[in-house]
Amino acid sequence: MSATGTLQVIGLGPGDPELMTLKAARLIAEASVVAFFARRDRVGHARSIAGDRLRPDATLLRFEYPFTTEMPLSDPRYAEQMTAFYEDCSAEIANHLDRGRDVSLLCEGDPFFYGSAMYLFDRLRERYPHRAVPGVTGMSGCWTAAALPITHGDDVLSVLPGTLSEDALVERLLHCDAAVIMKVGRNLPKIRRALERARLLDRAIYAERGTQDKQRLLALRDTDGHDAPYFSMILVPGRQNPR
Amino acid sequence: MSATGTLQVIGLGPGDPELMTLKAARLIAEASVVAFFARRDRVGHARSIAGDRLRPDATLLRFEYPFTTEMPLSDPRYAEQMTAFYEDCSAEIANHLDRGRDVSLLCEGDPFFYGSAMYLFDRLRERYPHRAVPGVTGMSGCWTAAALPITHGDDVLSVLPGTLSEDALVERLLHCDAAVIMKVGRNLPKIRRALERARLLDRAIYAERGTQDKQRLLALRDTDGHDAPYFSMILVPGRQNPR
Repeated sequence: MSATGTLQVIGLGPGDPELMTLKAARLIAEASVVAFFARRDRVGHARSIAGDRLRPDATLLRFEYPFTTEMPLSDPRYAEQMTAFYEDCSAEIANHLDRGRDVSLLCEGDPFFYGSAMYLFDRLRERYPHRAVPGVTGMSGCWTAAALPITHGDDVLSVLPGTLSEDALVERLLHCDAAVIMKVGRNLPKIRRALERARLLDRAIYAERGTQDKQRLLALRDTDGHDAPYFSMILVPGRQNPR
Repeated sequence: MSATGTLQVIGLGPGDPELMTLKAARLIAEASVVAFFARRDRVGHARSIAGDRLRPDATLLRFEYPFTTEMPLSDPRYAEQMTAFYEDCSAEIANHLDRGRDVSLLCEGDPFFYGSAMYLFDRLRERYPHRAVPGVTGMSGCWTAAALPITHGDDVLSVLPGTLSEDALVERLLHCDAAVIMKVGRNLPKIRRALERARLLDRAIYAERGTQDKQRLLALRDTDGHDAPYFSMILVPGRQNPR
């Protein structure tokens, strides 16, 4: 193994560059090969958080997602093309690791919490030495920016994808005290109905770009309720324990 | 408001001091009044993470928990004494804020995610200017140390207190894909039975002091199953999406 490089999966936190960890800042300043995902025609969120901390002479591997718009996860073309995409990205990283170069894969948020990086990590972990650096999650960034303690004492927290059916959302909302609903996008009207049925609408906060420029935080009731960016989220704080 | 100090609630991450954020490191190095919780006869976990980053001339407010052992949350003496304790701590912080001094309240993990600091924040937020700094949670530290991607794609994650009844645990485990069970301690045998009933025992990882010295990470099946430190946790990763 000593001849191959190490795969470093590095969480950079929720968006504000000062919310990356000391360890992430140290490792990316040392990195000679840096990989990151980006949407077509965008800088890439992880790349912008890293900013000018990267070495000017670092080799950058920019992995551009094959889609620009939301496609239903159930569409077989989606699964097929994403698999091919992740295979290509892994092969490109492996090519550097095989030559003894460490590769630092940048991730927004926390790498092992709903990150694309896991699909590369899962493919490469058996073959190469690896390490990972946790990061502040996007949801922590949002609830902190909203000054909203999310869970007290014995609260149950559920993190739910907005892609669930309305009934499945209601069922799960009834079994928790606090909730975070991710992947809002065009699911917003359905999510709102589910929160209403679970009698949680009055507690729900809409959060967009927490800790970043153009951050938006408001009561869900005060949004127009029609549409939202894919990466916005809904926060439902738990019981406000009066202790 | 300009005459009063600002309450700063600062998350320091899961334990490894290098996993605090750049912002937390900057703010604690500047802080002149620093508050933290500690168990009797202990340094205090947040205080040890901060280490020698604190100014040597900082005023330290050490808040010692009134209990040394686990007491059932349902015991009325517990609620009563904790309320009195949090009132005293808040009054001590308010005393500094009233004199125009900023107070930095240190927290392990993320302050608004099951932290004691919230009980002080909740009491002081209406009266004083405040800001909070999110941190890497203890659970992120544990799943990263275990090289265990916890959630992929559309997984539902539930965070459950081990204090729930066995039936309540099973019910909630059946409604999620991934789970983190906190507050393990003497609840371990019950948690193990609940995981067995939910057919999740084979996937469960026992984690103790993730990212810290004397870290312990092993399959739950391989523990003796009797007892564990209160702050250990159980991790159940979600569906291993083969994408």
